[in-house]
Amino acid sequence: MKAKTVSYVDEKLKIIDQRALPRKFNIIESRDIKDVYQYIKTLAIRGAPAIGVFAAYGVYIGIRDMKSDDKKAFFKRLLKTIGYIKTSRPTAVNLFWALNRMKKKAFINKDKPISVIKKILIREAKKIHREDKQMCEAIGNNGARLIKSGDTILTHCNAGLLATTGLGTALSIIYKAHAQGKNIKAYVDETRPLLQGARLTAWELRQKGVDVTLICDNMAAVVMKQAKIDKIIVGADRIAANGDTANKIGTYSLAVLAKAHNIPFYVAAPSSTFDFSLKRGSQIPIEERSGEEVRKISGIYHAPEAVAVYNPAFDVTPSRYISAIITEKGIFIKPYRQSLKSL
Amino acid sequence: MKAKTVSYVDEKLKIIDQRALPRKFNIIESRDIKDVYQYIKTLAIRGAPAIGVFAAYGVYIGIRDMKSDDKKAFFKRLLKTIGYIKTSRPTAVNLFWALNRMKKKAFINKDKPISVIKKILIREAKKIHREDKQMCEAIGNNGARLIKSGDTILTHCNAGLLATTGLGTALSIIYKAHAQGKNIKAYVDETRPLLQGARLTAWELRQKGVDVTLICDNMAAVVMKQAKIDKIIVGADRIAANGDTANKIGTYSLAVLAKAHNIPFYVAAPSSTFDFSLKRGSQIPIEERSGEEVRKISGIYHAPEAVAVYNPAFDVTPSRYISAIITEKGIFIKPYRQSLKSL
Repeated sequence: MKAKTVSYVDEKLKIIDQRALPRKFNIIESRDIKDVYQYIKTLAIRGAPAIGVFAAYGVYIGIRDMKSDDKKAFFKRLLKTIGYIKTSRPTAVNLFWALNRMKKKAFINKDKPISVIKKILIREAKKIHREDKQMCEAIGNNGARLIKSGDTILTHCNAGLLATTGLGTALSIIYKAHAQGKNIKAYVDETRPLLQGARLTAWELRQKGVDVTLICDNMAAVVMKQAKIDKIIVGADRIAANGDTANKIGTYSLAVLAKAHNIPFYVAAPSSTFDFSLKRGSQIPIEERSGEEVRKISGIYHAPEAVAVYNPAFDVTPSRYISAIITEKGIFIKPYRQSLKSL
Repeated sequence: MKAKTVSYVDEKLKIIDQRALPRKFNIIESRDIKDVYQYIKTLAIRGAPAIGVFAAYGVYIGIRDMKSDDKKAFFKRLLKTIGYIKTSRPTAVNLFWALNRMKKKAFINKDKPISVIKKILIREAKKIHREDKQMCEAIGNNGARLIKSGDTILTHCNAGLLATTGLGTALSIIYKAHAQGKNIKAYVDETRPLLQGARLTAWELRQKGVDVTLICDNMAAVVMKQAKIDKIIVGADRIAANGDTANKIGTYSLAVLAKAHNIPFYVAAPSSTFDFSLKRGSQIPIEERSGEEVRKISGIYHAPEAVAVYNPAFDVTPSRYISAIITEKGIFIKPYRQSLKSL
């Protein structure tokens, strides 16, 4: 993959449009914050860490072209931009984390000239971007220690190159183990309704030369029963202080099934995914998306057009099902409330 | 639904073509046994009991138009027809059960004139058809006793009007409880890869006025966790002597999740679904279908075209996960090896 999930070059904020992958490979530009908002909301860009990086650049895009030297107007615009981007998606905390970081950076430097604050903000966005790549490296290296040659790893949704600006979180571990010469295989759930596993993960694992088999979500249990799976690794969108983890819908199902089949279940995520303001997972807001995502595939209805649909985009896996949380700062194990204190 | 899943009227064997439902409602005719074979194989007709009825008529179609009065040639053709239809799908036992019943009926009457044997065979096919409808009634009435007003029932795939020639097996119970004035709700998994839940079950439950909500397969666990589901009822394609049950892929997953959430898990099936020649579920042959069913939806690739796919059409649920098996002859509970002896 030569193009980048997110890039900011020559004052142009570009992303790979993930909505049509792998059929079409389009690079699209975000010219203003409406684009930024729409691209997050419609999942042209998705994956908690990638959204964080993109939103940071989005904040800069929102104030970059202001001509006025009225500082009050500048900060008003800044807060409006942040408030607007914030409403794009509710569950992944990295979005809010990145927006808050940009906001803080601006306010710490509020006495400087606007032109200087602008420079500080683009520098901060680039720093978040750079850190994200490093985070992927570190998660991959930390997690690869858990992988043995001969392991078959099941993953869900997409927590890879396309979900971050580096190698990914869950998939970074697979890529690192593969690069270390370990003989590993991967299974990926297709991840209904938006098929990120089939469209994105199967595609990028193949690009990187990893042996991958695609299954439907409802086949994971029987593949586990057949003793084909040694480990399960998924990403995360928000982790509460007790280790309860919100991730793509279907993750909770896998975690319960993993326990029933005695398979280790790992979450891989940057430390920015933790939301220590929430004691437990039940406090994490869960985005519900349109029923049309379930009724239609590729624009074609396969279900009755008026049928009621329940379509939560995420679910919460209680920490008791999670064998370890792999971060860039190390591997954390139960009891999470204690072990996570060092963060 | 005015048309019948299977009908034999004016010497014409007709079925509803379920491949394009609910977008298109087509009735198609089986003119010869190649049609019979193809319609079963390509799932124009599916559902274990419906396949049984259809195959019985198929045997008659295979010998109906023979002009010769050479009895050796007649029985040769009969056995060839049965052998050919038998190879259409491997898992559902009702197919083999119906074919064997037709074969036995012919051989018991082998000394009669060919014209008489032909009449006996069409009468036997009609009897199997009639019994199937009665079986649906009886399963519905037996199972409805387990349903309370206020219950929400999760089902998987399609075990209804379209899977039988009557009210269904699992769905017959829902229809009977609904008709008895019980206030019930249904959830149905879409059932990837062929979406029988979304295409068929959501459609027929709505036709019958049952409150139904469609979910993706990977959402079932979180709906259970939210305490929205009181009971799970599914159909079956083959049940071994110990109660282990083969049914549509994803059934095993639901059964494990049901146990983890303390939800009763019921199998509804006619007694013809039992295969007492098999001691346990591991002996049931499981059909693997083309990976294209997973890579493509409505003819459009959403996964990489060359990605490896594992696509078992069925899985086996060990009997320890099954709260009861509801048949036309009564409700059987653990230990199945004992309780099923009366069959």
